[in-house]
Amino acid sequence: MLQRAQIISVLAGFSALSVAIASSLAAPSKVAPAPNGITLPQNYKDWRVIGVSHRKDNNTLRIILGNDAAIKAARAGKTNPWPNGAILGKLVFKDTSHKAWEDATIPGKFVHAEFMIKDSQKFTKTGGWGYARWLGKEQKPYGDDADFVEECHGCHTPVKDNDYVFTHPIILP
Amino acid sequence: MLQRAQIISVLAGFSALSVAIASSLAAPSKVAPAPNGITLPQNYKDWRVIGVSHRKDNNTLRIILGNDAAIKAARAGKTNPWPNGAILGKLVFKDTSHKAWEDATIPGKFVHAEFMIKDSQKFTKTGGWGYARWLGKEQKPYGDDADFVEECHGCHTPVKDNDYVFTHPIILP
Repeated sequence: MLQRAQIISVLAGFSALSVAIASSLAAPSKVAPAPNGITLPQNYKDWRVIGVSHRKDNNTLRIILGNDAAIKAARAGKTNPWPNGAILGKLVFKDTSHKAWEDATIPGKFVHAEFMIKDSQKFTKTGGWGYARWLGKEQKPYGDDADFVEECHGCHTPVKDNDYVFTHPIILP
Repeated sequence: MLQRAQIISVLAGFSALSVAIASSLAAPSKVAPAPNGITLPQNYKDWRVIGVSHRKDNNTLRIILGNDAAIKAARAGKTNPWPNGAILGKLVFKDTSHKAWEDATIPGKFVHAEFMIKDSQKFTKTGGWGYARWLGKEQKPYGDDADFVEECHGCHTPVKDNDYVFTHPIILP
């Protein structure tokens, strides 16, 4: 007959095995990495919301999400600079009008998902941020070569004083 | 000397005690319930995003979140009708312009958080949905009495064919 300690040990073994199996079954991303080597962040669709914007110059709605590190920093108001490990994701949609409420602009065609990854040691040439973007439903990496980040960094330079981030995190009661 | 099984038993006891303490320390909501008795959903700020909209008729940006049941239904495309237990939350902000990108409309003052709770047995008079709204940072319940839901229900009636929901969940690759 098994001792209680042995049973617990066996159960612990099963638990570890379950975790190992679950990990190995997690499908590797079929999405190609960006030209600078950055890979699509896992589970970004489950990240929490940091902000939203509507751009009239290109008629797009944007939802800004953050990984756990980004959410923690945003809620603590510690976003200038953002901490290493923070990732901001932006989901961009073309405008369309709501059929039952014509004055409401809502997400139409999905344009792209783009990300800023904070690593002040790794991304020294672009203000401590690594940039990547995947286009459309096909999730095609943006950029012909690794230099595409110069465009990203250039566009974000006007908000250098806000650690290169346009988004001001929402503040809720 | 303690046997291994005894040690594990003691540790398990501590673990259960920790959970009990953590539960008892979870602060009860200081937010008053809506006039129809609906209480502010817990942890809604951690819910995942279902959509976004920009209303030109009242100059507001809206972020639509869903609890786990709503997210599951949205991702499965099973939202007509939405399942019982689904809750949709809408965070509403007054428009403002981004100082560094004037064509970008971003969240300004927080207006209110409002919710739709699906329970087809409980909320038979309002299409199976319970409505509640809390105003501003003060989170003041909206409505003088329980009849305030007639206003909510009336406004949502034009989208009766979409189970009274305006939001079309975003679809991501």
